[in-house]
Amino acid sequence: MTDPLSHRFAEYGAVAKRMGVDAIVLVPGPNFTRVVRHPFMSHERPHVIAICADGRTAAIVPNLELQSWGLVGFDGPVFDWRDQTGYSTAFHDFMAYLAVNKIAVEGQVMRVFVHHALKTAQPDVQIIDAETEISALRMIKTDDEIAAMRTAIDISERALDLTLDSIRLGDTEKDIEQRLILNLFAQGAQDHAFRPIVAAGENAARPHAEARDVAIKSGDALLFDFGARWGGFCADITRTVFVDHVTDDDADIYNTVLAANRKGHEIARAGITAHEIDDAVTGVLETSPHAEFIRTKTGHGLGREVHEAPYIMRGNQMVLPAGTVFTNEPGLYVPGRLGVRIEDDVLITNDGCVSLTNYPTDLRVLSC
Amino acid sequence: MTDPLSHRFAEYGAVAKRMGVDAIVLVPGPNFTRVVRHPFMSHERPHVIAICADGRTAAIVPNLELQSWGLVGFDGPVFDWRDQTGYSTAFHDFMAYLAVNKIAVEGQVMRVFVHHALKTAQPDVQIIDAETEISALRMIKTDDEIAAMRTAIDISERALDLTLDSIRLGDTEKDIEQRLILNLFAQGAQDHAFRPIVAAGENAARPHAEARDVAIKSGDALLFDFGARWGGFCADITRTVFVDHVTDDDADIYNTVLAANRKGHEIARAGITAHEIDDAVTGVLETSPHAEFIRTKTGHGLGREVHEAPYIMRGNQMVLPAGTVFTNEPGLYVPGRLGVRIEDDVLITNDGCVSLTNYPTDLRVLSC
Repeated sequence: MTDPLSHRFAEYGAVAKRMGVDAIVLVPGPNFTRVVRHPFMSHERPHVIAICADGRTAAIVPNLELQSWGLVGFDGPVFDWRDQTGYSTAFHDFMAYLAVNKIAVEGQVMRVFVHHALKTAQPDVQIIDAETEISALRMIKTDDEIAAMRTAIDISERALDLTLDSIRLGDTEKDIEQRLILNLFAQGAQDHAFRPIVAAGENAARPHAEARDVAIKSGDALLFDFGARWGGFCADITRTVFVDHVTDDDADIYNTVLAANRKGHEIARAGITAHEIDDAVTGVLETSPHAEFIRTKTGHGLGREVHEAPYIMRGNQMVLPAGTVFTNEPGLYVPGRLGVRIEDDVLITNDGCVSLTNYPTDLRVLSC
Repeated sequence: MTDPLSHRFAEYGAVAKRMGVDAIVLVPGPNFTRVVRHPFMSHERPHVIAICADGRTAAIVPNLELQSWGLVGFDGPVFDWRDQTGYSTAFHDFMAYLAVNKIAVEGQVMRVFVHHALKTAQPDVQIIDAETEISALRMIKTDDEIAAMRTAIDISERALDLTLDSIRLGDTEKDIEQRLILNLFAQGAQDHAFRPIVAAGENAARPHAEARDVAIKSGDALLFDFGARWGGFCADITRTVFVDHVTDDDADIYNTVLAANRKGHEIARAGITAHEIDDAVTGVLETSPHAEFIRTKTGHGLGREVHEAPYIMRGNQMVLPAGTVFTNEPGLYVPGRLGVRIEDDVLITNDGCVSLTNYPTDLRVLSC
């Protein structure tokens, strides 16, 4: 039986070899968690692991984490440090042990203070951003990972259902957001994947709107973008409903977005590129009378992080293999009036795709 | 009436002058939010503002955030970019406009991909980590900020009370954690400040333990470290209770930690240094028979971030002014047996300090 830890290390060591760097250096975050199988906090204390192309590993561990670190089964040298004495010696000894010239890091995860600590310990070390190459190892989801995402999605859809049933005219965006969050946790969420977006009317025209103390009114489009986290994996769902009634013009906006969303489900399959999906989905919006209201790309990968590779946008020629999970979330944003976004989580298979999200997408007018 | 935005800019411009750098460059996070007064997400999309020593400002804004950015009232040049075309041109134009040689960034917030994008746009730009100087502007809390923290703490203490009353032998750490989270949101939390820690027995000996599917048993020390977020500000509270009964040895550990915690309240006042507080609080632990079980410093600043300056540890000679809020959280961690931590949020005043947390700290044995 393979030791999963050494197996993970071998994967990252192979990336280092392939990239021609001496080591991959990870900090707490999705890749770190995938490797060590235990979550560690990332606050002001640097906590680092290196996986060398030659197979060696080493870690810098805050002293107060040594107890938890013992659960990891890490067998390389560990350079620990205490708050009272600081971490510069640990970084110096770590770099001296590694004796590397060129390291690759996760540019989307590592912060500048760790980057500078590495540089201070060894000024001539070359640090390159290999976010794409490192995180690519997370792109193909295992059956267990997909099962965790299905659980997160199931929790999220039940929470949405309960929330929609509770909505009345006069509720504020914040009231509804609070109810959605409570329903998420009551349904078994271990966390929310991100702070939910609940936005009505002109506020929904802001793709990353913040809920307001403003009451929803008849005719508003009401947008929910949210998801549970379960077993370390995220759900990310957007549904847009109309409050009390919908105008023909707004219904046309909605159905244009829905057509784009359905196009994504139609064409997704193993071997397609991220560019091809965005081109087809965004193409539906561009050929509609509402092209001027496009603001975003089609979507992004989903897994341990709510936004991860592959980014589903034109120009990204990455070929998507079976096992990739991405968000199919076309939208139209009409400033001062409404925003409509419909987002599903889609698993790519060899003969097409499976929507992990199943909440209905047909135009819905809440009677409240 | 001062325009708050220009007033904030002046504060950061003054820091740039004082540090002899040409500009402070901020990314979404606590300082960014403090300046622009609106929360922005920080995912894979760079979003940056620069505040120059000469008073100029400029921003790089993801196109999909322009609608929200309009609410900020930012009057400097804005270089926006779209997912489809990428951000390198925006960074190039931004740096060309700034024409700076040396910039200061928040090393604990800015990630390497933004650091590298700045360097790519202008290879000779010098980027220094000024986390301490930049975040120092957040150290003295305003009355509104303290009021928000009091609300977050009040929510948290009510949630803890409800949770403790519900505990029965046989509940698992995860059951209890889930109930605590539900209670937090039901009491009005807008978010949790961090993923709560609920750990019993030997698991509590890990300062950053993760809740397990393990039932609590009679005699366990049960540690809660959690907090609500409200109005953008954090609560951070730790209480440790005993399940069903407590041994004399464990009670002695508890009361040693309590004595250290009380020492912190006794001595905190405007003008004391972070070193002096940690020295006195940790000193109580060191002079006890349990000195070998010390793992952490006394605490950290609290505000928009759950961990921020000032770090309450020996060697930190920072003088603490009235208006500083810090966590007073001594602990003892006995591997394989128990962990005890008692954490209060303390506001420093001119004639002493006020504990914002009021939940009782006397040794408590849950009858369950």
